[in-house]
Amino acid sequence: MAQVKISIVGAGSAVFSLRLISDICKTKSLAGSFVTLMDVNETRLDDAYELAYQYARDMKADIQFEKTTDLEKAISDADFVINTALVGGHDFLENMRKIGEKHGYYRGIDTQEFNMVSDYYTLTNWNQLSFFLKIANMMEKLSPNAWLLQAANPVFEGTTLISRKSKIKMVGFCHGHYALNNIIDALNLEKEKIDWQVAGFNHAIWLTRFQYKGKDAYPILNEWIEKHPNGNPPKNPFDDQLSPAAIDIYHFYGKMPIGDTVRNSSWKYHYDLETKKKWYGEPWGGADSKLGWKWYEDKLNDITTLTSKSAELLRKNKNIKLSEALSANFSIIPADFANEVKNFYDPSTLSGEQHIPFIDAIVNDHSNRFIVNTLNNGVISGIPDDVAVEIPAIVDKDGIHPEEISPSLPERIVKWYLYPRMMRMEWALEAFEKRNPDLIIEILLRDPRTRSYEQAKAVVDDILSSPFNQEMKKH
Amino acid sequence: MAQVKISIVGAGSAVFSLRLISDICKTKSLAGSFVTLMDVNETRLDDAYELAYQYARDMKADIQFEKTTDLEKAISDADFVINTALVGGHDFLENMRKIGEKHGYYRGIDTQEFNMVSDYYTLTNWNQLSFFLKIANMMEKLSPNAWLLQAANPVFEGTTLISRKSKIKMVGFCHGHYALNNIIDALNLEKEKIDWQVAGFNHAIWLTRFQYKGKDAYPILNEWIEKHPNGNPPKNPFDDQLSPAAIDIYHFYGKMPIGDTVRNSSWKYHYDLETKKKWYGEPWGGADSKLGWKWYEDKLNDITTLTSKSAELLRKNKNIKLSEALSANFSIIPADFANEVKNFYDPSTLSGEQHIPFIDAIVNDHSNRFIVNTLNNGVISGIPDDVAVEIPAIVDKDGIHPEEISPSLPERIVKWYLYPRMMRMEWALEAFEKRNPDLIIEILLRDPRTRSYEQAKAVVDDILSSPFNQEMKKH
Repeated sequence: MAQVKISIVGAGSAVFSLRLISDICKTKSLAGSFVTLMDVNETRLDDAYELAYQYARDMKADIQFEKTTDLEKAISDADFVINTALVGGHDFLENMRKIGEKHGYYRGIDTQEFNMVSDYYTLTNWNQLSFFLKIANMMEKLSPNAWLLQAANPVFEGTTLISRKSKIKMVGFCHGHYALNNIIDALNLEKEKIDWQVAGFNHAIWLTRFQYKGKDAYPILNEWIEKHPNGNPPKNPFDDQLSPAAIDIYHFYGKMPIGDTVRNSSWKYHYDLETKKKWYGEPWGGADSKLGWKWYEDKLNDITTLTSKSAELLRKNKNIKLSEALSANFSIIPADFANEVKNFYDPSTLSGEQHIPFIDAIVNDHSNRFIVNTLNNGVISGIPDDVAVEIPAIVDKDGIHPEEISPSLPERIVKWYLYPRMMRMEWALEAFEKRNPDLIIEILLRDPRTRSYEQAKAVVDDILSSPFNQEMKKH
Repeated sequence: MAQVKISIVGAGSAVFSLRLISDICKTKSLAGSFVTLMDVNETRLDDAYELAYQYARDMKADIQFEKTTDLEKAISDADFVINTALVGGHDFLENMRKIGEKHGYYRGIDTQEFNMVSDYYTLTNWNQLSFFLKIANMMEKLSPNAWLLQAANPVFEGTTLISRKSKIKMVGFCHGHYALNNIIDALNLEKEKIDWQVAGFNHAIWLTRFQYKGKDAYPILNEWIEKHPNGNPPKNPFDDQLSPAAIDIYHFYGKMPIGDTVRNSSWKYHYDLETKKKWYGEPWGGADSKLGWKWYEDKLNDITTLTSKSAELLRKNKNIKLSEALSANFSIIPADFANEVKNFYDPSTLSGEQHIPFIDAIVNDHSNRFIVNTLNNGVISGIPDDVAVEIPAIVDKDGIHPEEISPSLPERIVKWYLYPRMMRMEWALEAFEKRNPDLIIEILLRDPRTRSYEQAKAVVDDILSSPFNQEMKKH
């Protein structure tokens, strides 16, 4: 049993913070730990703190809290820093997207071949990449032995950048791989009898191993596809693991794309809303259409309203539980969150986020398997050592021990998908590191939406002069 | 002094054949050699043979000739096979280009980012790539110790393909690097006091070393550019080594692009004729516009007419020299060829083609420096071993000894130019090797000219069903 200081940067995302807090409360071997919630948005921080504090009290957990808007305070003497902050928030993303669309870049210039996820900004959000480095630099001074758990996007660029530029220990996390469960459910398989691996980059992972009861399970998947040539209709914009796009990508690349990889395809699936609908289903056309992304932002807003109203209720009435405060406002949000709240109170069910089990594995040598983002160092052949890969690994007190990827990633995936994606990462990082907007223009010259040099230059000039982009304005 | 059998495949290109023959005649250490001229076009072969035969008689050269339309005969017992054949000829290229343009692909689908040269077909001319392998396979059986000298495009794809698939000794040649002379002339430098290297891929080479009298010569180039910000106006469509495009590419990549590299740029310089004119000069807009390429094809046709008329004259009149037969028809062609014909008779001036000096270096250990295309094997760092690079090398009886590239190629060139170019090579070769047109469609999905999947599919379907494309039709 070890007492550690865990700091959550960007803790104003109340639900994400609650998930982590509930995991800490349920992990007895982390009892006595100290949690710092940090956010620059004081209102959202106060609300998140109120919820977390009440929840820990409900659970009678041995855990101490503080909240702060001061990054330095959060990082000082931390053992683990979990970064989930999106600098500028969704408003920033939408502003940049709007400028892009004005110049003919459907869904904005950050939307790129094999990088279509609508909040994964690699070109215009230098604020975000700067903030990643700021945290790492601060950690080197104020908590040099701490681990950074990188949850904020872009995880691929972020993990590569920080790992190259800093000596701190770090790992990147995403929950994309959980989408494998959708396949398991559809095929009616018993989860514990599956032997699986995924490998690739963040938002670019592939089901390289898929065995059921010791035998290749791909034939079962193929049979399902034969019976469901159009996949499954989506229940929400993110429900794409068995979409026509996923099946088509699988047929081209030879392995099933998992999680966000399905969204991160080529323009074939994304030219316009009609195309998106065809490949990701009606009515939204997937998460990254205007409709799908609105659905998601509305949900985020609803959660913020729920958080805020529930925090207000808790402040007024010190005698109610968090669950009561939340359920008083449940009308605001979709039913699945109500279910999650129930789970918060079930001591045997963790949230599914990997962060706290990872901390437990490191601190208490509770060895466990994770899907981590970490520098390749030879795990995926053909990919340079200093590029972050997303792979399965065993984690214990000695750190991260990547699994051997067997069978290895097919050449088709390495040469036609990972290489182009990796190059875009390298280009984006060089543009950022040299603070050179000409490199963004050059990237756009290789973009199918660009019709002329003048168009590419104009959109970059417009983004540079945006009052929202401090890092670019500095240049 | 060694007597060898040298076979020229595609010898119907009479001027190219004459250059090689004149080099052989002037290389005394190759006296007694046997030259086989091979071409499937009997008329053009007969004409080329007539010219070459008469020329050797004029020179009283100790050299024997044969002509044949039978590839097997040419390759049997050869010591060197020089392949310059373009399967299907220029008609094939223009047919494929026409289909491409019909579907919205300006200059045809083979015209690609970093591969804009109008006869460098990597996607649709499977006939050509098949022929490369046919020669290599035949050599393995009929002349297993011979060298293949690959002069036909695409040299990058061809050298990589043959080197990977065959055990024969081979080298790829191009004369792109001679364009360095244009820079030397413009800067008024003494050629023999220059220490230079170029490195990269075929049609993608960069002036990595440029020293004059022991000092960096790039400042002299920069000074010239400062005085000539718009470069030099072109004297012909191919006169682009000091074009605005070359200067702009140099400024982005940090080293001067040499020869065809200037044409092999991004779409920035190639969107349409107006754009091409801006970057490659008036009136043609460079060699790869409709106007520039017409200029080149007209010239090729004129040369064929000249060849044919001169051969006719020689057949009628056995007492005249080749130079007399040619000059009787000089009105047909531009003046520079008249000059070249004069050089044919100057024993101290070689043609400038590297093939015969290379053969002399191998056969007679006459060690010499060449710019060769050969598998990388560690010469350019960051590029896989099994990819053909174009680099300087010393050649002697023991073969090719690549120079160390120092200073090395800048990261900017490797990551932003060579990698994307290399990937296109890998994609094109996989499409060809698997005879999989779906891969051509996938390549087009990454092409800025593609507006929809349907467009890409339609153009590939149309190309597949073309009566000109036997290899694709087979599929």
